[in-house]
This record gives sequence, structure tokens and C-alpha cells, in this order.
Amino acid sequence: MPQLRVAMAQIDTTVGDLDGNVAAIRAWTRRAAQEGAHLVLFPETAVTGYPVEDLALRTSFVDASKQAVKRLARELADDGHGDVTVVVGYVDRAGEDTRPATAGRPKGLPQNCAAVLHGGRVVARYAKHHLPNYGVFDEYRIFVPGDDLLVVRVKGVDVAIAICEDLWQDGGPVQMAGDAGAGLLAVINASPYERNKDDVRLELVARRAAEAGCPIAYVNAVGGQDELVFDGDSLVVAPEGTVLARGPQFREELVVVDLEVPEGVKTPGWEENIQRATISADLVPAYQPTVSPVLEPLPDVADVHAALVLGLRDYVRKNGFRSVVIAVSGGIDSALVASLACDAIGPENVVGISLPSGYSSQHSKDDAEDLANRCGFEYRQYPIAPMVDAFLQTVPLQGVAEENLQARVRGTTIMGLANQEGHLTLATSNKSELAVGYSTLYGDSVGGYAPLKDVPKTLVWDLSNWRNADAASRGEQPPIPENTITKPPSAELRPDQTDQDSLPPYEVLDAILEDYVEGDMGRADMLEAGFDPTVVDSVVTLVDRAEWKRRQFAPGPKISYKAFGRDRRLPITNRWREPAASATLTPPVEVKTDSPLGRN
Amino acid sequence: MPQLRVAMAQIDTTVGDLDGNVAAIRAWTRRAAQEGAHLVLFPETAVTGYPVEDLALRTSFVDASKQAVKRLARELADDGHGDVTVVVGYVDRAGEDTRPATAGRPKGLPQNCAAVLHGGRVVARYAKHHLPNYGVFDEYRIFVPGDDLLVVRVKGVDVAIAICEDLWQDGGPVQMAGDAGAGLLAVINASPYERNKDDVRLELVARRAAEAGCPIAYVNAVGGQDELVFDGDSLVVAPEGTVLARGPQFREELVVVDLEVPEGVKTPGWEENIQRATISADLVPAYQPTVSPVLEPLPDVADVHAALVLGLRDYVRKNGFRSVVIAVSGGIDSALVASLACDAIGPENVVGISLPSGYSSQHSKDDAEDLANRCGFEYRQYPIAPMVDAFLQTVPLQGVAEENLQARVRGTTIMGLANQEGHLTLATSNKSELAVGYSTLYGDSVGGYAPLKDVPKTLVWDLSNWRNADAASRGEQPPIPENTITKPPSAELRPDQTDQDSLPPYEVLDAILEDYVEGDMGRADMLEAGFDPTVVDSVVTLVDRAEWKRRQFAPGPKISYKAFGRDRRLPITNRWREPAASATLTPPVEVKTDSPLGRN
Repeated sequence: MPQLRVAMAQIDTTVGDLDGNVAAIRAWTRRAAQEGAHLVLFPETAVTGYPVEDLALRTSFVDASKQAVKRLARELADDGHGDVTVVVGYVDRAGEDTRPATAGRPKGLPQNCAAVLHGGRVVARYAKHHLPNYGVFDEYRIFVPGDDLLVVRVKGVDVAIAICEDLWQDGGPVQMAGDAGAGLLAVINASPYERNKDDVRLELVARRAAEAGCPIAYVNAVGGQDELVFDGDSLVVAPEGTVLARGPQFREELVVVDLEVPEGVKTPGWEENIQRATISADLVPAYQPTVSPVLEPLPDVADVHAALVLGLRDYVRKNGFRSVVIAVSGGIDSALVASLACDAIGPENVVGISLPSGYSSQHSKDDAEDLANRCGFEYRQYPIAPMVDAFLQTVPLQGVAEENLQARVRGTTIMGLANQEGHLTLATSNKSELAVGYSTLYGDSVGGYAPLKDVPKTLVWDLSNWRNADAASRGEQPPIPENTITKPPSAELRPDQTDQDSLPPYEVLDAILEDYVEGDMGRADMLEAGFDPTVVDSVVTLVDRAEWKRRQFAPGPKISYKAFGRDRRLPITNRWREPAASATLTPPVEVKTDSPLGRN
Repeated sequence: MPQLRVAMAQIDTTVGDLDGNVAAIRAWTRRAAQEGAHLVLFPETAVTGYPVEDLALRTSFVDASKQAVKRLARELADDGHGDVTVVVGYVDRAGEDTRPATAGRPKGLPQNCAAVLHGGRVVARYAKHHLPNYGVFDEYRIFVPGDDLLVVRVKGVDVAIAICEDLWQDGGPVQMAGDAGAGLLAVINASPYERNKDDVRLELVARRAAEAGCPIAYVNAVGGQDELVFDGDSLVVAPEGTVLARGPQFREELVVVDLEVPEGVKTPGWEENIQRATISADLVPAYQPTVSPVLEPLPDVADVHAALVLGLRDYVRKNGFRSVVIAVSGGIDSALVASLACDAIGPENVVGISLPSGYSSQHSKDDAEDLANRCGFEYRQYPIAPMVDAFLQTVPLQGVAEENLQARVRGTTIMGLANQEGHLTLATSNKSELAVGYSTLYGDSVGGYAPLKDVPKTLVWDLSNWRNADAASRGEQPPIPENTITKPPSAELRPDQTDQDSLPPYEVLDAILEDYVEGDMGRADMLEAGFDPTVVDSVVTLVDRAEWKRRQFAPGPKISYKAFGRDRRLPITNRWREPAASATLTPPVEVKTDSPLGRN
């Protein structure tokens, strides 16, 4: 049986940076060639970055993507790698290089494509069949689907190509690859990180390899892009389920694997919906295969931490910032954000500002300073009383309005420093707060990026504990002060305030939010799950009424099944209230863990 | 030929308020029955409001919608209107009352449906075939399409049903209605207002009526919902193109029309993809038809003004506010917003706050007060110097950071008053400013609703002039001071500042923005259109770099082909820059408030 050395380059590209991405693809191809790879796979739309969103609707952008791929093919040959076959994702246009897309859709609309490059040319291309249009995905909005399978013969092996969602849907390219007798199914992906998704992906790839009757090489992107974090975790799984290779998470890597698969024997000719191209029919002379890494994915919490660090680092870097500023209160949220920032871009690029008021406890100020000393970031203190007093002498505000004023004075101060010194402001609100609107708009919620946007409060504690324990296990000083972790959370906007004056205990709140926000469960189901009706009603009401506030909040990395932001699109003007249990309706059947439209 | 009296109820429903919407449908049906209507048409998803967005993914919500329609049918009969046939839009589930939706999609997913109610029952239902998934629409995300045509025989007339997008796409229900020999095609819509769309709709309805070979009765929703405004403008057009009836724009109305069309003759039986139901085969005894109104749509600018007033009124009302607060600067944007607010909810519910600094000119303060006197709203003045000074003594800010500070002190003041007194804050930024980022985040951009979000600066002037002239033509005092309209626009954040220090003239800026934002044109096309390359480059750069700022801005009514918000979805992290025609990319114009990238 023919041998084939396949390299999966799980790389971190930037949306819109076509020149930079092409340069990275050349550099990684060079490395793959040095390692003797015959076939190099790059992620979905690696040339343009993912997701391009409505850039796909701009003619100049799609033209530039097409041209970049042609140029890339030539440059790879110029680099001396014309004999290596490279598969790379980009944006093309339907009906220009092949026949029109499916029924009723005009020619010339954008497609999510894979190009096969060899010998200085674009040898063939494949257009994604299944366009995800759920959760964070809007691909049906911007792309038209393809309907042909592509099979390329490389060193005698028939390699079929598919793109991301093609693997998650039944039928289509996986089944076609099996029918076409492919020796390998190469799937290029930009599949965002979600907690526990690594297990789902491995199971999926194994199942599809069995269906296709050949190994699947699954290469995934790495890096942060606005609200998404791509985690890599590239895989090769044999049809009988053996994991032949598995790359690291959250960092760029070239995962090389040697395969031995049946030779392609079919003669290229007309077959419905199959395009075949022969790059090289001659087998590689027999050689000693390398042993590929089969890494274990990171355990839970550690993987969330890694996702948050990468998302933050890439947001800062790709948007041209060098440093961040954070309002550190002595509380757990700002402490975790500061610790994440130090891990992401180094403490020398982090500025922490303490903004105490008359209601701030001494332990808050001490804890904030302790945090700064442990982490090693620059720390300054500006008491807010003079500014708050100046407002109150002009505009008499009381109660919640006065509490919000304190938060907004802090927001204005931190933003002034950010503008003056050129930092990105990090917002410190967590998902539980965002859910129930427990924050002041234009106050403690200011910032251009919110690392904890999708992190519930209970997970904030878990992450802090994990980070401290991880430091201790390496003999380092734990970054987050113990008192910050153990004390009761408080906004400290009036005397002796704690979060639990206004909210249920966070374990209860987070459990309800998981069912209501992530699970889209109705009231009746939540009561069935055993929650107190009064608590459910108050939480649901708070969540429904805070939509307008969330709409003006910064982006932050998605780590859950359903994040706030583009993942969950609800009207602001919305009088829908979950029906009370007394007016019992037909009990709905809902399976929380199974999304009928699939996930990637 | 049989006669049929059709009533089109263009009503204003609220998303999620199923009880309220059902009550409104009953009341309007009563009125239609009093006017002798045989068939009453209500807009698309009138029962649930439009658009329901991800509420459609919640089982409890879809169940409630289904139950509400059944209850509505019973209640209409209880009201004594069981003999009237009512067509109303709601959300149902695929495959429960009829066979599964199209290929590859499981049963039980939500559908955008029309129910036909008669005799206390839901007689039949129709599921929308074409799901819009572009612009502001996400229907492919939340609904599965139908594939059957529904034809209902009412008083001997075969009435085919279609929903909104079904009319905009070739083929499908329009052609099927023609093939089925329908006597009338009833199309229920929730079609948002866009400038000049009324002409497009009339032309479309006429063309489709010709294709179907029967009249089309087109009923459209009215009202504001977050970023959308539905303008009514319901129509009946005969197959030869005669407009038989046309309702008003921007207000609820019952448009009644008498039709005389061929009798349905086909016997119900099995036909592929056609469901037929007979409600009443007996013709109505001959009667004298009424003359229907054929109203002219409002002229341009007047219609935009009406859209802005309705959008604002409905946002305030449907979100449970009674009053608004506006920072009135003496400038044109805040003056127009205040005037719109007075038109929408009455001057007694509007509070204008003047927040002068040392840089504020005397004419600004005078103009703001003059505006308040003309409009009759409550007016207060709070100089910001004490608060700004308190900040500057604590945190030494200069230049742009100090300019932003002034704006944020104003934002904090206005939000404090809004919180204290329970007003909705209106943001006053216009589309031109939003496009280029000429505003301070958390400063002059604060607010829960932004009436001018989709209104370019040149249109701000046009609207102000139109509103003044309209007042004068009615012998009323023009609301907006002449000096506010004629003086050069300035942010007044430093001495002698004008907008044109930082930006090209607004006529040029708005023309480029129309091509770049609404037209998605590339640089080369804009140069071809005759714009100066230097100006194009600087504007494009500013627009690209302000995406993060727009993401945190309030919703506002869409009036153009492409509004900021859900209509235009671009990444924040985005290194795409329009390719320069030559190598000479000139440095961008510096924007003095909140500099673009590298700051927040």
C-alpha cells in the first residue's frame, strides 16, 4: 500500500491580512517540506482568516482572496516547494472556476473554498457543501454551497477534501468520499473552542472515518478572532477508530503523520458530482514512518484558562495594542482579568488602577495592591471622592443613581487613562453579572474587550483556584490573593453591600443561567429540574430585562455552548415572559445536549 | 363573477406580547366585521410580533404561539365573527400539523406560518417557503421552510396565501398560485421601511400579480421594533397593474377593498404540493362595491421623518418608558432628536439638559434654550466645569483624552439624571459620525436609543429644514432655531473647533459613505465614481477602524438600504484594507475625538 506523509499546519491567521496570512502559509509549508511532507493541510479560509463575515459581500475582497491564492501557488513553487501538494482554505466565487452552485442561486456569489496547490498552480478547488447558520455562524448569509466532491490523487493516494461543517452533517462529502473510494479524507476547519467540545470532535471524526472507510486528517485553526477562540487540537483518526495523531491545543504546530492507505485505482472519468484530479500517480518509495504525537487535550478549567489567555493575547495583538489597563478593585473578577492579562501579554504591559471610594474596604485596597505585587504589574491609586462630590454638588443623585455615578466616575477615569496612554481597557464583568444586568452601563462595564464575558462567577472562582494551584505546582507564587478568592463578593457601592443582597447564591444563579441561557429551557422545565419557582422567576425576569445593556457591552471570548453576543440573538423590545407554571401548557420535549442543526 | 370584501388590517403588534397581540387582532376583526369584510388579513407573525429572533428556538415560546392561535380562533367565534375568514401570521412547528419540511431538515423545527381561522377553528396553515437570510434578516437561522401552497375557498373564491419573502423570490408560491388558478393571492408581510422602498414594493406587487394572473392583497405591519420600522403601505394590485387600494404609511389602518374575481372551479383533490380547503363555496349575493382609498405614499424626507417618529415612539412605549432625556448642545443633531421626541411622545415627556463647558459658545447655550422654548420641553442647565476640574486635578489628561473627558462627564451627568428620574436617554449621534468614529465612547454616544443612527448628517439638515417648513406651512412656529441649522457644526471640545478640522465636507463625506457603507464598493470603484483618492482613503480607513466603537452603540431605526447594526456585520479584528490603486497610501485624516485604532 502507498505511503503518504501528511502535515497539518494548525496556524493562527488574521482576518483580512491576506499578505500576512500568505506569508505564514509559505513559512509553514517550508517547514513541512523540510520534514518531508507530501501533503500539507491548512485550516479553513486560512488565506483570509475566519470568519470574514460581510467582507465576503465586497467584490474587492473576494477578488483579492482569489488572487492571493494564485500568487501563493506561484510563490510556493518559487520557494522550491512546487512538488508538495498544499490544501488551503480561501474565499472564491461560485461558477467562475466550476459550474454554478445549487438550485436557485445565481452564479458569482462567494463560496467557502479549499484550493489544492501544486507545481505553481491552483490544480483544483472544492466548495463547502454544508453552510452553518446557527449559533455564531452566518455562512448561509454570505456564501452559496457547493455540491461537487473533489478527489485529488497524490502519490497514488486518492485524497478527498471537505470543510468543517461538511463533517458535522449527515450525508454529503463524507458519504461521497466513501462512495468514491477515497484513501484519505482531508478536512480543513475553523472550529471555535467550546468547553468539552474536544471530546465531541474526537467522537465525530472517528464516526465519520468509519463511515468514509478511510482515515480522516482534521486540521483546525488556532487563535483568537473577536468573540471566537480556535483551539487547534488537530487529529488523524483511522477508520477503525485509532487516533493516529493529535496536536496541541491553543498554539500553532505542525502535526506530521505517516499514513499507509490503499492505492487509488479508479480511472478519472465522468462521475456525477465528483471532480478528480491527478497530481502524482507514482507511489513514494517505501520509507520508515515517523511516530506522531498523540497529545491528551488539556483537562477542564485548564483548557478554559488557555482559551481566555489566547483570546486576550490575539485581540490585543491583532488590533495593534501593546498594553492594557484594568480597574482592579480587590475583587475576584478584576484579579482574574489582571492575572490573565499578565499571562497573555506580560505584566510589563499591564496597568492596574485602584479607584477607591469611601465605601471601599481596607481589605479591597490591600488585596488590589497584593495582586499587583504578586503579578508584577504597574499599580496606581486614584481615590474617586473628589469627582463624585463634584457631581453630587451639581446634580443631586441618590440611591441606585448615586451608586451608578460612582461606577461611571471610575469608568471615565479608566477610559481617560486609556486614551491618554494608549492602552486597551479590559472590562471585568463576568457572564453571571451580564446575564442579570448586575453592572452599570458606561461604568464598571467600560472596555474594549471583556475576558470574562462568557465565564460564570462560579467558574471565575474555579479558574482563580486552578491558576493559583498551577503556580504552586511549579513552585511559583500564586498570583491571586487568597483573601480575594475567599471573601464574599461585593460591588462596594454602599455600606456593607454584598452581591447576595440582590442576587441568589452564585451556585444557584449559575445553575439556573446554564439551563435558561445555554439550554434555552422554559420555566416549566426549570421547575421540573428542581429550582425554586420564585428564584427562577426573578432570574428569568432579570435576564430578559438586561438585553439592552448586554447589547452595548464589549466582545469577549466564547467558551460555552451559548455565549452572549452573536451566539444568542434576542430582541431588546420583548414582552415575552415565560408562562407561570400554574397555566400549565403541553409539556415541551427538549433535549438540551443535542442541537438538531449541529455544532462546529 | 363572485364578489369578495377583503379587509387588510395593518396593525402594530409587540414582539412577545401574545396576549396583547391577540386582543388587538380580535378588536380589528370586530371592526372589519362591522365593515362587512368576508376575509381579514393580518401581517406576518402578527400573533408573536416580528422579528422574534432566537425566541423561536425556545420550546415554550413556540408552544405559546401555537396555543394563542387556537385560542384566537375560538375567541373570534365567541365574539360572533366565526363566519369571517381571518388570515394571521404566527410561529408554528414543522411536521406537527402537516408533513415535514424540505429535505434533510428534521421535524418539529419552528416555521414562519399563516393560519386561516374560521368557525372557531384553525382551518389550515401555510408555512413560508422563502426565508430571508440577508441584511437584517436571520430567518434561515430560526425557521425551516415550507413547500406546500395553500388555497382556501372563501365565498367561492380560491384564495392562495404567501408570506413576505415568498413574493420577492422568483418561482415558489407566486407561480404555484398561478398554476393553481387562484382568484386572489393574499400576502402577509412584515416588511421594514427603507427609503424609496415603497416604489420598489408597488412595482414588485404589480409584477407578481401579473405572474399569478390574479390580484394580490399585500398587507404590511406597522410600528417600531428595535432597529426596524414597519411602514404599512398595504396594497391591492390587479393582474393588469391597476392599484385597487393603498393604505396609509406609519399608522394603523383597516384598508377595505371589494374584489370581483373568477370563481374557483377545481374540485379539491390530490395535487402535488397544494393543499386546498373549502370554507364556503357559496357566492355572496351581488352587492354595490365600496370605493377604496388609493393613498399616495409620503414624499421623500417626509417619510423618513415619519419613520423616525414612529420608531422612537414605539421604542419608548413598548419598553415601558414614559419620558426621555436628551443632552441638547445647541447643535443640529440634538435639536433634531429633541424635535423628533416632542413629535413622538409630546414635549411634556421630554427633558433637555444643557451641559456647557468653557469651550461652549454663547450661541450654543442660546440656541439650546431657544429650541426648548420653541418645542416646549423642560430645560435645565448644568455647567460641567466643576466635574471636569475635579477629574483633571486627580488625573492629568490632555489633548484628545481631555476632550473625551468632557464628553464623558456629560454622559455621566445625563445617565445619572436618567437613572434618578426614570427617563430613557436618547443618543444624538448621526450615521456620518458613527461611520467615521467621530464621537466619544461612553461620552456623547451614551443612550438606550439613537434616533439618528441611520441618518447621515446631510439628511439631518434636510429633515430639520423639512420639519421647520412643514410647521410654517401649518402656521406653526418652526421647532428648530435657524441658527442651529445654518452655523458650522462643531463638537466644541476645544477653542474654535469645527467638524471640518477633522473631516471632509459633509456632502463629500456622505457621498463616499453611501458608496462604501451602503454600496459595499471597493476603492477602485469609488475612484472611478470621481472621488478624490486621498479623501476616499482617509474615509475608508476611519470607517474600518471605528467598527469596535459602533459595536457598543445603541440601537436606532433603519431607514437606509444598509444600516449599521445587524444589517452590516463586519469583524472588529480586521486587517483588510482596500487595495490602493497606486502605491501612494496617504496618512489618514486625524479624528480629534476618540482617535481610531490603538485607543479606546
